[in-house]
Amino acid sequence: MSGMLDEWIQKRQAANERVLSHGTLTTKRFFALDGQAYDEGKLPAKTKELMGLVASTVLRCNDCITYHVLQAVKCGADQGEIIESLDVALVVGGSITIPHVRHAQAVLQEIEERGGLPAGW
Amino acid sequence: MSGMLDEWIQKRQAANERVLSHGTLTTKRFFALDGQAYDEGKLPAKTKELMGLVASTVLRCNDCITYHVLQAVKCGADQGEIIESLDVALVVGGSITIPHVRHAQAVLQEIEERGGLPAGW
Amino acid sequence: MSGMLDEWIQKRQAANERVLSHGTLTTKRFFALDGQAYDEGKLPAKTKELMGLVASTVLRCNDCITYHVLQAVKCGADQGEIIESLDVALVVGGSITIPHVRHAQAVLQEIEERGGLPAGW
Amino acid sequence: MSGMLDEWIQKRQAANERVLSHGTLTTKRFFALDGQAYDEGKLPAKTKELMGLVASTVLRCNDCITYHVLQAVKCGADQGEIIESLDVALVVGGSITIPHVRHAQAVLQEIEERGGLPAGW
Amino acid sequence: MSGMLDEWIQKRQAANERVLSHGTLTTKRFFALDGQAYDEGKLPAKTKELMGLVASTVLRCNDCITYHVLQAVKCGADQGEIIESLDVALVVGGSITIPHVRHAQAVLQEIEERGGLPAGW
Amino acid sequence: MSGMLDEWIQKRQAANERVLSHGTLTTKRFFALDGQAYDEGKLPAKTKELMGLVASTVLRCNDCITYHVLQAVKCGADQGEIIESLDVALVVGGSITIPHVRHAQAVLQEIEERGGLPAGW
Repeated sequence: MSGMLDEWIQKRQAANERVLSHGTLTTKRFFALDGQAYDEGKLPAKTKELMGLVASTVLRCNDCITYHVLQAVKCGADQGEIIESLDVALVVGGSITIPHVRHAQAVLQEIEERGGLPAGW
Repeated sequence: MSGMLDEWIQKRQAANERVLSHGTLTTKRFFALDGQAYDEGKLPAKTKELMGLVASTVLRCNDCITYHVLQAVKCGADQGEIIESLDVALVVGGSITIPHVRHAQAVLQEIEERGGLPAGW
Repeated sequence: MSGMLDEWIQKRQAANERVLSHGTLTTKRFFALDGQAYDEGKLPAKTKELMGLVASTVLRCNDCITYHVLQAVKCGADQGEIIESLDVALVVGGSITIPHVRHAQAVLQEIEERGGLPAGW
Repeated sequence: MSGMLDEWIQKRQAANERVLSHGTLTTKRFFALDGQAYDEGKLPAKTKELMGLVASTVLRCNDCITYHVLQAVKCGADQGEIIESLDVALVVGGSITIPHVRHAQAVLQEIEERGGLPAGW
Repeated sequence: MSGMLDEWIQKRQAANERVLSHGTLTTKRFFALDGQAYDEGKLPAKTKELMGLVASTVLRCNDCITYHVLQAVKCGADQGEIIESLDVALVVGGSITIPHVRHAQAVLQEIEERGGLPAGW
Repeated sequence: MSGMLDEWIQKRQAANERVLSHGTLTTKRFFALDGQAYDEGKLPAKTKELMGLVASTVLRCNDCITYHVLQAVKCGADQGEIIESLDVALVVGGSITIPHVRHAQAVLQEIEERGGLPAGW
């Protein structure tokens, strides 16, 4: 799955542009709020991104998992912290989350193999 | 809803005893694993309990929310940290989680009103 | 279940006040957005409330169903329109939604029996 | 929770009568189909009822769990078979299903305590 | 993603033929009922298809979203109506639905680019 | 979709190796438990695999469906039994499961066309 991330980033950006350029004020406000929820506050941004990863895993959304793994790494989370977060999701969400734990590991593996986050993330 | 917690704790304990006394080895192992996932590790136990709260809120389980609010408070989480965790859940999970955010606040309110966690928690 | 609605309205209002008075700017903005999504636009408010009812039924949230039935009736939806909306939800969401279709009918029945919406709704 | 079943059966019947008397042809056909799916076929009715129990547990619907425990017992399932079915659901669906496994055990306990299924089931 | 629709339509038809030719009477009846739920009634077919779109988005099924966007357009829904429907789904279902709102926009974009619905839809 | 299974098996195995080699004791224990839940017990292994299929279909996980169809066939389930299991899932889970019923049939079709399970399964 090497190279998955560059294509994913490009498609996601194009798709978000389409959604926002065609969206209503409600659409735009929701997207703004979605950013603010992860801002540094009483909890560190890293913790919130890991929470986003847990939520994405129990709700079983690979696209969201890719995003929050990238964001968690950007905020300084290491592999051990990400894996313990996935353990919480696995136990809460059950074996139905296993394919999504695999996906999170595939994202981690690509980050490892390319020696860090994609340029510009 | 004052007094909700004492009855909830008592019923939960009786129900868990029934499940475990009638359960198989698989049942018992699952319950043991459910405890271990929240143990202090590379991430603090407090963070993991807040992750459990976020997962429970997006999956919309009031019983699980009650448990993780109590556990998070026990591990030292303050109201501000719990509320920011609920914000992450609210934005990820949408307005369908609002009744569950209300429930989490009702648990917080009872803890406030009784001046702390129920005895023995 | 007669009288269910008065208590439900009172509890919901108190709980929302707690959530908003203790919430962050993110919490408040989410609640505002949740209102705007149902405003009259290119689609009538009635249609949007019925969509909210369908979404609430397939996601199986009785609290949300009570709210959207009340709102749909307020926007002029009649029983036939509400029941056809519930049919869409039933077929999309399957038999697991049946307890929630029953709940929607219980709300409709109480509105019928009291001769209209609760005062002040 | 002793006595839970008699009230549950009575309320369910009244609510189903309301749904069917006010429903469309689509509503009625869905309810008929919901019955047929569990009829004896290449798989025994008992197996299908236990499958309905597993599905209800991973989808986390207590009302549906009560129904399928009663039906499974009626079709001859014993406690050991029901508990192994709940184990499958617990592992597939994770700790979020625990409150529903507790509910299933509460139904089993009431059946035990009253010495069998409610009269007329 | 240009050309996505032709392949999607062809695969869907082949897969449905397999399901129906190998299915039981229950399978066939369910498929028939699935069609009837969207028939013109007290609510216009267009409204029901938009409800199907909202339900598919909050339940996060891209395949179902593709189908209901095509059906809604066929029944006369314009982009503004479809986007407001997606807004309701986004606010009810939260940020976890964003990848599916992107998918709905990709379907709309292909319809735009090819100047209308695929031939024969 | 011919040939889908060989690639799927290979990718799954590589991904599981990554998850387990990087996982914690909690991860490994969960995977062990996931195996044990389907062991022959008071219910036959075949029945448990079909239950896993029903759970995977109502929770809408194609990866899990592929696995449980293969396992059910290995345990001796024939097409008629698998299709009746899918009917239970379809009625419980609604039309949103249809794309996943199609997927299960695609797996069955490939098994048919290759004259049995993939070598080594």
